[in-house]
Amino acid sequence: MSPATLPPVLIVGLGLIGGSVGLRLREQGIAVRGVTRSQETLDRALELGAVQGGSLELTREVPDARLILVAAPTQTSIRLLTVAGELARPGTILTDACSSKQEVVAAMNALPRGIAAIGGHPMAGKELAGINAADSRLFEGATWVLTKTERSDAASAAACETLATVCGADPLWVEPEEHDDAVAAISHLPLLAAAALVLAAEGSRSELVWRLASSGFRDITRIAAGEPEMGADLALTNSPALHEAATLFDTHLTSLLDAAHTGDKPRLQHLLSQAASRRRRMYGGGG
Amino acid sequence: MSPATLPPVLIVGLGLIGGSVGLRLREQGIAVRGVTRSQETLDRALELGAVQGGSLELTREVPDARLILVAAPTQTSIRLLTVAGELARPGTILTDACSSKQEVVAAMNALPRGIAAIGGHPMAGKELAGINAADSRLFEGATWVLTKTERSDAASAAACETLATVCGADPLWVEPEEHDDAVAAISHLPLLAAAALVLAAEGSRSELVWRLASSGFRDITRIAAGEPEMGADLALTNSPALHEAATLFDTHLTSLLDAAHTGDKPRLQHLLSQAASRRRRMYGGGG
Repeated sequence: MSPATLPPVLIVGLGLIGGSVGLRLREQGIAVRGVTRSQETLDRALELGAVQGGSLELTREVPDARLILVAAPTQTSIRLLTVAGELARPGTILTDACSSKQEVVAAMNALPRGIAAIGGHPMAGKELAGINAADSRLFEGATWVLTKTERSDAASAAACETLATVCGADPLWVEPEEHDDAVAAISHLPLLAAAALVLAAEGSRSELVWRLASSGFRDITRIAAGEPEMGADLALTNSPALHEAATLFDTHLTSLLDAAHTGDKPRLQHLLSQAASRRRRMYGGGG
Repeated sequence: MSPATLPPVLIVGLGLIGGSVGLRLREQGIAVRGVTRSQETLDRALELGAVQGGSLELTREVPDARLILVAAPTQTSIRLLTVAGELARPGTILTDACSSKQEVVAAMNALPRGIAAIGGHPMAGKELAGINAADSRLFEGATWVLTKTERSDAASAAACETLATVCGADPLWVEPEEHDDAVAAISHLPLLAAAALVLAAEGSRSELVWRLASSGFRDITRIAAGEPEMGADLALTNSPALHEAATLFDTHLTSLLDAAHTGDKPRLQHLLSQAASRRRRMYGGGG
């Protein structure tokens, strides 16, 4: 499917992700409308050129839509998907941008027959949220996870692959469970750990903490600066996988702390070497 | 004290920190010699212009030195400082670049009378290690912590302030205990947590982990890519403060995970908001 064959797109939720998709699609000449919660956001999206039109109500936009991308925090997205599924004409394609997939896919499986649905997760973001942070190049080179549902067919799969490709991303088909296990380890647990590091530093008795914190602490806590509602939703909708990742993490952190406490330098160095070389294999020396 | 009044400097340990200081001092026309473990490193430091000369033996360099910066992993630095203190002429000034200060200061307090010593910790770094990563601008705008010892006097304090300033850093006098509590929270615990995140991701059953890991995981685990020996030494020499920071961290992480597990969205959102706004107050929206 070439970009030209992508039907007009309705984006529900015009934050960083929705806004960035809108900007990109408009650059490619694809028709885009939007639905969002506040008039202010809609006005701004129009002004930036992320949408050509839209409204604050699903009922006004969904019936005419052909391809709908829901890009809101996960729990909200599930609610919006469900409502949109009721309002949409048969043959409409629904997809999402949520960072956990099992609960989303379950909701998609419950959509009326005749509605097509594909789960999606563009693996890109930045710490700034909202339409003003939207960037048409946000997804360039990123992986855009796609998951089939009981409502998927060849046409909806092709349309969602095209959507990802038009945005500059690489589509990757993954099972929802596998996806959720992976993002628990590389995204959801790191987010909670980063938040806990900030809260622990804040609780430290030394005021000096904030005076001394430099680039290392800035980098490690960057993901803790994101939108709290988005963070809460991803943890809430991926709790079992998150719990499993946290247990593994706790085992490793305890080993490291124990080695430090007992003065076991060889063991500490071994564990840190393992981590450093694993990370280096992945990202190279720099980066 | 103006840069011109800084005596010739002997740098012991020509890795990222020692090499970067050497390059900077040489740019300012200050005489620099070096001591390092391998001929290869010494040759490279000469080639890069980080030192004008040097050798592999403290005994050959220390007796003629006036200001000595020891820039090795913490436990090694303590050993080198102690040896250098025995070899040095009275009036020689010793300082270090270690990221924990209480054990270093204790070793400095035990130096022979007549030797002057000031603890130091330039709060800068990058994940690449070694002389080849040295950069004369590494310390620009960074805080350079200085701590007094029982061997400090006005002249050594002034010399170390000048050393920091010449490197482009802002000297900041801090008590060793206070320093160590702060760096446990913002540097040592984050390093171990980042290593544990990498190890947990590695242990996850999904191979997909490494395929999906993107900029967020890259940022949060960056400090886990550093030199294992340096990491081990900082944890080993700051274990009590590290333990305290880890306890606080565990409390916060457990609260976050519990809120996710019990579906307590308001609480989860509250905790994430606290972390996000604290971080934003510190680093601003971006960064």
